[in-house]
Amino acid sequence: MAVETVGPRRPEHMTSRQLDRRRRVLAAAHELLAAAPPHEVQVKDIAERAGVSLAAIYHYFSSKDHLLGEALVAWAEGLGESTRRRSLPKDPAARFTELIRRGVRAYRREPQYAALFLFVAASRDPHAIECMGRLSAHVGGAMADALSYLDAQTALDVQRIVGNAWTGGLFECVHGLSSFAELERSMAAACRLLLRA
Amino acid sequence: MAVETVGPRRPEHMTSRQLDRRRRVLAAAHELLAAAPPHEVQVKDIAERAGVSLAAIYHYFSSKDHLLGEALVAWAEGLGESTRRRSLPKDPAARFTELIRRGVRAYRREPQYAALFLFVAASRDPHAIECMGRLSAHVGGAMADALSYLDAQTALDVQRIVGNAWTGGLFECVHGLSSFAELERSMAAACRLLLRA
Repeated sequence: MAVETVGPRRPEHMTSRQLDRRRRVLAAAHELLAAAPPHEVQVKDIAERAGVSLAAIYHYFSSKDHLLGEALVAWAEGLGESTRRRSLPKDPAARFTELIRRGVRAYRREPQYAALFLFVAASRDPHAIECMGRLSAHVGGAMADALSYLDAQTALDVQRIVGNAWTGGLFECVHGLSSFAELERSMAAACRLLLRA
Repeated sequence: MAVETVGPRRPEHMTSRQLDRRRRVLAAAHELLAAAPPHEVQVKDIAERAGVSLAAIYHYFSSKDHLLGEALVAWAEGLGESTRRRSLPKDPAARFTELIRRGVRAYRREPQYAALFLFVAASRDPHAIECMGRLSAHVGGAMADALSYLDAQTALDVQRIVGNAWTGGLFECVHGLSSFAELERSMAAACRLLLRA
């Protein structure tokens, strides 16, 4: 049995006081990310805003990339919860389309998370890569659920195409090559064309 | 009438000797890009390899980003020419699918151009942005031609979705989140699903 002896402490092994401190650190990261692009956000500023020592931060997160990866996952999981609370259409294609629309809307409302997504996705830090894996599983799981009415291969193809187009669309928005309004139209068209009977 | 008084000399205003020097600079850039990622390639190394002074380089290109943007456009235009020489299927959907497949293959064969694409696309340098505009017009024009059998709105939608998925796919390949083999499968599936009658 593998016993984890290196790396940051995992949330499931934290006391409630440690979890509270970790939450404060992530909240501070979210605040700073609203004001500056991820490559300019500094861990020492996050520590200061959270009222936590730099040493404590590295107890919870192995690196800046890991911290920002956890901030991205926390944001996406929060979105997932609020999305589940609002009812979705019964028709499977309309349901999938609406899920995608809500996702794009979330990035449109808070475009700093589009920049954060690209930052974390481009990181080679092993813990950031692990965060991307959890994010993919989270988003991919929601997509696969909504597409389960299709045959398995088509569902997988649609999921990949939409996933690629999503990543590309976020890249183009962040770098000023396109707009979120355009991305919303383009993703709606993707759903319509990919899911027609 | 606007007279261009600032910025690098444009190829259409160059003597044949200047054009030859410009070609040598771009050839040197291509060689260095095969060996190192774009952010590590330095203009002084390109100058040295091309046997051209640094001052001369800045006569032709306003910045490193501009130089690399021109290298990207030159590569893509070269591909376009070699693609046009090889015959394409007559069936319009098969024709578009084959064009996309050749494009992905080109990046797969020389993945340094995927990294270069992302580098230039992310640049805020005005001349690099202008290069991206020319690249988009070049690729978009080829796609629009192949899709002209569809109604205008569907053709535009397909072009945008495929463009977004392409950008996202290159991003994922460059950052090790996916493979070119996977991108080839995914783009083939995109063409199949988007273009079914």
